[in-house]
Amino acid sequence: MPNKITELFEIEYPIVQAGMVWASGWRLASAVSNAGGLGVLGAGSMYPEVLREHIHKCQQATTKPFGVNVPMLYPDVDKLMAIIVELGVKIVFTSAGNPKKWTSFLQDKGITVVHVVSSVKFAQKAEEAGVNAIVAEGFEAGGHNGRDETTTLTLIPAVKEKIKIPLIAAGGIATGRGILATMILGADGVQVGSRFVASQEASSHDLFKQKIIEAKEGDTHLTLKELAPVRLLKNKFYEDVQQTYAQGASIEELKNILGKGRAKRGMFEGDMEEGELEIGQVSSIINDIKPAATIVADLMSEFNLAKKETAGL
Amino acid sequence: MPNKITELFEIEYPIVQAGMVWASGWRLASAVSNAGGLGVLGAGSMYPEVLREHIHKCQQATTKPFGVNVPMLYPDVDKLMAIIVELGVKIVFTSAGNPKKWTSFLQDKGITVVHVVSSVKFAQKAEEAGVNAIVAEGFEAGGHNGRDETTTLTLIPAVKEKIKIPLIAAGGIATGRGILATMILGADGVQVGSRFVASQEASSHDLFKQKIIEAKEGDTHLTLKELAPVRLLKNKFYEDVQQTYAQGASIEELKNILGKGRAKRGMFEGDMEEGELEIGQVSSIINDIKPAATIVADLMSEFNLAKKETAGL
Repeated sequence: MPNKITELFEIEYPIVQAGMVWASGWRLASAVSNAGGLGVLGAGSMYPEVLREHIHKCQQATTKPFGVNVPMLYPDVDKLMAIIVELGVKIVFTSAGNPKKWTSFLQDKGITVVHVVSSVKFAQKAEEAGVNAIVAEGFEAGGHNGRDETTTLTLIPAVKEKIKIPLIAAGGIATGRGILATMILGADGVQVGSRFVASQEASSHDLFKQKIIEAKEGDTHLTLKELAPVRLLKNKFYEDVQQTYAQGASIEELKNILGKGRAKRGMFEGDMEEGELEIGQVSSIINDIKPAATIVADLMSEFNLAKKETAGL
Repeated sequence: MPNKITELFEIEYPIVQAGMVWASGWRLASAVSNAGGLGVLGAGSMYPEVLREHIHKCQQATTKPFGVNVPMLYPDVDKLMAIIVELGVKIVFTSAGNPKKWTSFLQDKGITVVHVVSSVKFAQKAEEAGVNAIVAEGFEAGGHNGRDETTTLTLIPAVKEKIKIPLIAAGGIATGRGILATMILGADGVQVGSRFVASQEASSHDLFKQKIIEAKEGDTHLTLKELAPVRLLKNKFYEDVQQTYAQGASIEELKNILGKGRAKRGMFEGDMEEGELEIGQVSSIINDIKPAATIVADLMSEFNLAKKETAGL
């Protein structure tokens, strides 16, 4: 399936697995890459030496291209970047920061740079910074998100209108129909998150995976907007946050209730009450835990079926 | 284009014009119906005798089918329904209330009943109540909306999975690509709102239409969630609401600041500062005011172009 995204990453299908904290280790990334998509390690939850180990293991587990997602707010971002360059990773996804800072540094080393945004404005800034492609992520996406609350359906055509570089749609995409729909809106490929958390290879805790497949509509919410907006599953921690809001929370109080290590506690250690459980709205239609390769194959077979059906509309 | 929706309404294209307050009078509804879509009068902003006049004029202006949208929270809903029956309107869209109350009454008179929902749960209840079709409206839609904040991209496949009756997608659809994308997700047709407010025939004030085509991303927001969630353009009234929130607003204070007649004042009388300006997120990609017939024709030509392009994906 030759298109701008498959050619940019030298992969078979235009499906990128999101580099998610506490989910996207070498097992998931290599499984997705071996299945013809682009696996991405989530460095946001890794110490530099942990990332080194995951890159090594990913290189042993696949000969196909894979990437690393680096949130630029990470305190030791320069250490991560040095390891990425040292170990010859060929694709980096940057997020949560200014794309000017690292793009040319990475590209000078022959690395393809993709920047994740949630608005047209930041898509344009990333294009100006010279990145090779954009991930545009809608309001329905899990985890950290933009302040404008623009949904994928609105965001993708708006970004497409303003940028020329390849565009990857994210947020709310967990099916082959979702891939086709966002490509019709102007995307060249997709980034899939939640669907891959509910995979056998994701490093997320089993209790979290179970919660995802049980999630129904309305079970996620975008909250903590005064700190950094984040979509998460409603649980005791979430209810505590809402109660703090009801009492007229200050930013300081919100920071206090969030504390440190909430995300690890929930998604990695399996504390379903007190942990932060980042996941997308589309978890409401994810009903099983599958091998990553099956997910990729199912996405593509539904995509192809939907494409055939479209001719008859 | 024969499908479930064109056959249900006996129309040419599966495009429903939303029956919006202060926008959807006889001029807009008849223009859309004459162009091959389904025009819908918005009774929510009409006194019963005003609705009577609009139905009369619509019947004079078109021989094609058209509908009436009736919010069931309307205080004189029985008077509206009596006029609808008396004048032989064939299609009614009900919203904001229990579909059990009016469905069989209307269907006994040969009227097709469509119910507007924003969740799977209410879609199922509407199907159980015997309605002929569902409009499922996502978070990005303008005006009143659901509490779950489910986006169109997530909502449509989730509803499709659970109901058998025809499904109309709404929220974020202003282009032919948007129509095709939501149909691929499982919709049989679409309801288009914002795009038709920015039409020559909409009864909305010209200043409001101007604001819509100037709107950029992030310029709308879903607020007043404690009363009834509503998506509106940010203006002085909106900022006053946000300030009330910042001071820890009670429901009583929110009711006071909303007051009476805010929507009319903004959308119909053209007070861009103090009025309530209900519009969808997709206004960010609406850039011109066109005749309704041109809108319908453009939607369908882009739809057909996108359908052809899909074969090459």
